[in-house]
Amino acid sequence: MKIVPAILAGGSGTRLWPLSRADRPKQFQKFMGDTSLLQDTMLRVAGNDAYSDPIILSNEAYRFVVAEQAQEVGVDLRATVLEPAMRNTAPAMTALAAIVAQEDPDALIHVMPSDHAIETDDAYWNAITAAAAAAAKGMLVTFGVSPDGPNTGYGYIQSGDSVGDGVSKVARFVEKPDAATAQRMLDEGGYFWNSGMFLFKASVFLAEAEALAPTIADAAKASVAQAVVDLDFTRLDEAAYGASPEISVDYAIFEKTAQAAVAPAEIKWSDLGAWGSIWKASERDADGNKASGPHTIDRAKNSLVVSEGAHVALQGVEDIAVVATPDAVYVGKLSESENIKSLVQSIKANEDTATMATTHRTSYRPWGGYSQILNGARFQVKRLFVKPGAKLSLQKHHHRAEHWVVVSGTAEVTVNEDITMLTENQSVYIPQGAVHRLANPGKILLEVIEVQSGAYLGEDDIIRIEDEFGRN
Amino acid sequence: MKIVPAILAGGSGTRLWPLSRADRPKQFQKFMGDTSLLQDTMLRVAGNDAYSDPIILSNEAYRFVVAEQAQEVGVDLRATVLEPAMRNTAPAMTALAAIVAQEDPDALIHVMPSDHAIETDDAYWNAITAAAAAAAKGMLVTFGVSPDGPNTGYGYIQSGDSVGDGVSKVARFVEKPDAATAQRMLDEGGYFWNSGMFLFKASVFLAEAEALAPTIADAAKASVAQAVVDLDFTRLDEAAYGASPEISVDYAIFEKTAQAAVAPAEIKWSDLGAWGSIWKASERDADGNKASGPHTIDRAKNSLVVSEGAHVALQGVEDIAVVATPDAVYVGKLSESENIKSLVQSIKANEDTATMATTHRTSYRPWGGYSQILNGARFQVKRLFVKPGAKLSLQKHHHRAEHWVVVSGTAEVTVNEDITMLTENQSVYIPQGAVHRLANPGKILLEVIEVQSGAYLGEDDIIRIEDEFGRN
Repeated sequence: MKIVPAILAGGSGTRLWPLSRADRPKQFQKFMGDTSLLQDTMLRVAGNDAYSDPIILSNEAYRFVVAEQAQEVGVDLRATVLEPAMRNTAPAMTALAAIVAQEDPDALIHVMPSDHAIETDDAYWNAITAAAAAAAKGMLVTFGVSPDGPNTGYGYIQSGDSVGDGVSKVARFVEKPDAATAQRMLDEGGYFWNSGMFLFKASVFLAEAEALAPTIADAAKASVAQAVVDLDFTRLDEAAYGASPEISVDYAIFEKTAQAAVAPAEIKWSDLGAWGSIWKASERDADGNKASGPHTIDRAKNSLVVSEGAHVALQGVEDIAVVATPDAVYVGKLSESENIKSLVQSIKANEDTATMATTHRTSYRPWGGYSQILNGARFQVKRLFVKPGAKLSLQKHHHRAEHWVVVSGTAEVTVNEDITMLTENQSVYIPQGAVHRLANPGKILLEVIEVQSGAYLGEDDIIRIEDEFGRN
Repeated sequence: MKIVPAILAGGSGTRLWPLSRADRPKQFQKFMGDTSLLQDTMLRVAGNDAYSDPIILSNEAYRFVVAEQAQEVGVDLRATVLEPAMRNTAPAMTALAAIVAQEDPDALIHVMPSDHAIETDDAYWNAITAAAAAAAKGMLVTFGVSPDGPNTGYGYIQSGDSVGDGVSKVARFVEKPDAATAQRMLDEGGYFWNSGMFLFKASVFLAEAEALAPTIADAAKASVAQAVVDLDFTRLDEAAYGASPEISVDYAIFEKTAQAAVAPAEIKWSDLGAWGSIWKASERDADGNKASGPHTIDRAKNSLVVSEGAHVALQGVEDIAVVATPDAVYVGKLSESENIKSLVQSIKANEDTATMATTHRTSYRPWGGYSQILNGARFQVKRLFVKPGAKLSLQKHHHRAEHWVVVSGTAEVTVNEDITMLTENQSVYIPQGAVHRLANPGKILLEVIEVQSGAYLGEDDIIRIEDEFGRN
């Protein structure tokens, strides 16, 4: 029987700011290579006989990027389940269990974050095999990573009596400890890092949820029963799901159940939870530096450079993280990069900088996307990119006129009653109030420079008359 | 008798990279406030009864920015002298002395760099008065700044016997010392930092140059005799000037002459020679930080942020300089920022990054300028800004077509035989090979978004048919 992988991809953390922002968080970013962390997670399970097609849990805002990233790496999804509200892991996992149980109550589910680094070596499969055996016998299995130091950034699990297959009962869960406590646990032995992955039988999890957290169980089951399937998306019912308290699965279920077990996993694992752990999980050069994007490094040590824009020149420093995006540059102590939360909060709290905490210069849309490249007092310049075969909504603006200059590919442009084809080097003017649409009828990416003029240039000055993605 | 200020503004140093680059070096940059260092220097002398209108020494590449910056702050220039080649300070100062001597051999000249920070307080005027008195008696006077620590970044001057007015003979010049030597000089007393400013009588300087450095004197005098005056610029003769060896005035004259004197100057002075000295010369906050441009600082200490573009977020670091421009970000140890030379050299040596060491994203031209805002494979987007009343050359391109969209102001556009007026929100297409010209007939700045398309987009694909600034 195949294990159902359930990938949690709804988070919007900013601990990897300025790269991770609410509009395109960490799991969708490709800063570790050619694939995003979500894609790495999909590829880890796809095409492996032990697993069936994965279910993704995400939300409305990320539905198109999930679909696109799955398509990019050729992974078929069993379902993309959309949470109507953030309620933490207990309701989310209960809903997932209810969805899987509809088809097969005995199915095993492997719940995993979408933004961790894991190597699928022998140790990984040994851990999965052991956990699956224990889960089949009715245990709710966690995965415990062997600590390689007194890390204070993770929760810990103390293992208890063996239940066979190398799996043990959970003696207790320990929240992120202080340094002394972490060292004591390391010295004592029998403690593992809580990896945030779980493996259990759908029906067993549901039964425990009903027994230990009935409000959550009722809300989650009702949200599944009333879910609406639209295109490839399963939308949980908003009212039902919203009735659940916001609580983690650790608190609500795993710390209370008598069936919690821990499978020791001698795996190469990182939660990539801060720039410091990104650096640790990377291959570094002889001076301990890791750099991606354009850079020059001169006599720096144990430092990290990530650039999506400017050329970063690093000189003489040690233990420094530099992360450069087109609109924001973070420079901090690498070893203290977990403190970034307070920094991002202060940027969010300031009216002038708030959008920088949530929104990138480049926004992705189901049809492609756009980059803001210049903002003037009464004008804006954007680069639009439209996928082959895609079209934007039929729309109009009250306050701005637009010039479109095609710089690559072929555009089909509607302005009021007229439809024209434009190729590289041709342009069109869209007067204020004109109904217009941009489409790419070609086989290659269409790129358009858009110059907007007007007294008000906000994204909300848009009236959609028709949209194939169902947006208003 | 008024002192003639002679401001040296031809340097192209990169020790303040990425802000200072050959195409717009430090003295023209406005990172210390609303005015550039050159403008601060002009304003220091302008309108003061002790000084006549300043002479600027610069070169061909910077002639328009010198003129523009003088005009911006309303300073009348006596002349702008253009060096046809870089030959260091000895030939430059000899030529300046020859120019001044043509009108008045007895005139006193105060030679000063254009990129230092100096306060014109009582101490300043006391030093000038003393130096002028000694210069009138035939001394070649240097200004010695009282050291406030064993700085190894400056040359030192040891003072000898008094020549009256608080001025002393120079006992000897000491090159940039090591730390131990610097400390010894500080302990011993009687040593001053060499400020790079000089005050002397034109005829006395010329006589000493003729006696001690005849090749330089002949070359400099010939270059002045054959100079060409064009618009507001005095162009020294290239062949004559080029015959001079490249050598500093310290080596060629001041270390050899028996008439060298030092006027102690208890002034607030910095050579602003590295990011560390910029930081030292700045007003810092309670944590010792100084920041200009968009930034957020969280628990950082004794650090410097200068941003011309991205929002810089600094967290937890100490003794760090972050300098962000649209295309390059420098992060280094503030206390070791004098080492930047090697870094810039390696950036210059790399084909992919070389232009980043010499050229900014924004280029200034006598008619205004342009910013590169996006570079694609077969397209480029620029923002052009044209001053009221200015016009670009009449030109054509072999390999690219252009779209111009006016986003602010009014444009007069020539395309082959047609001349049209465009206002905000109107556009024009310039086909490959068409003769065209952009002009601003209006009273406010004209801003145009230019989209270039073509297989070759280099700046050198330009044929100028007519240019009011005399460029080919």
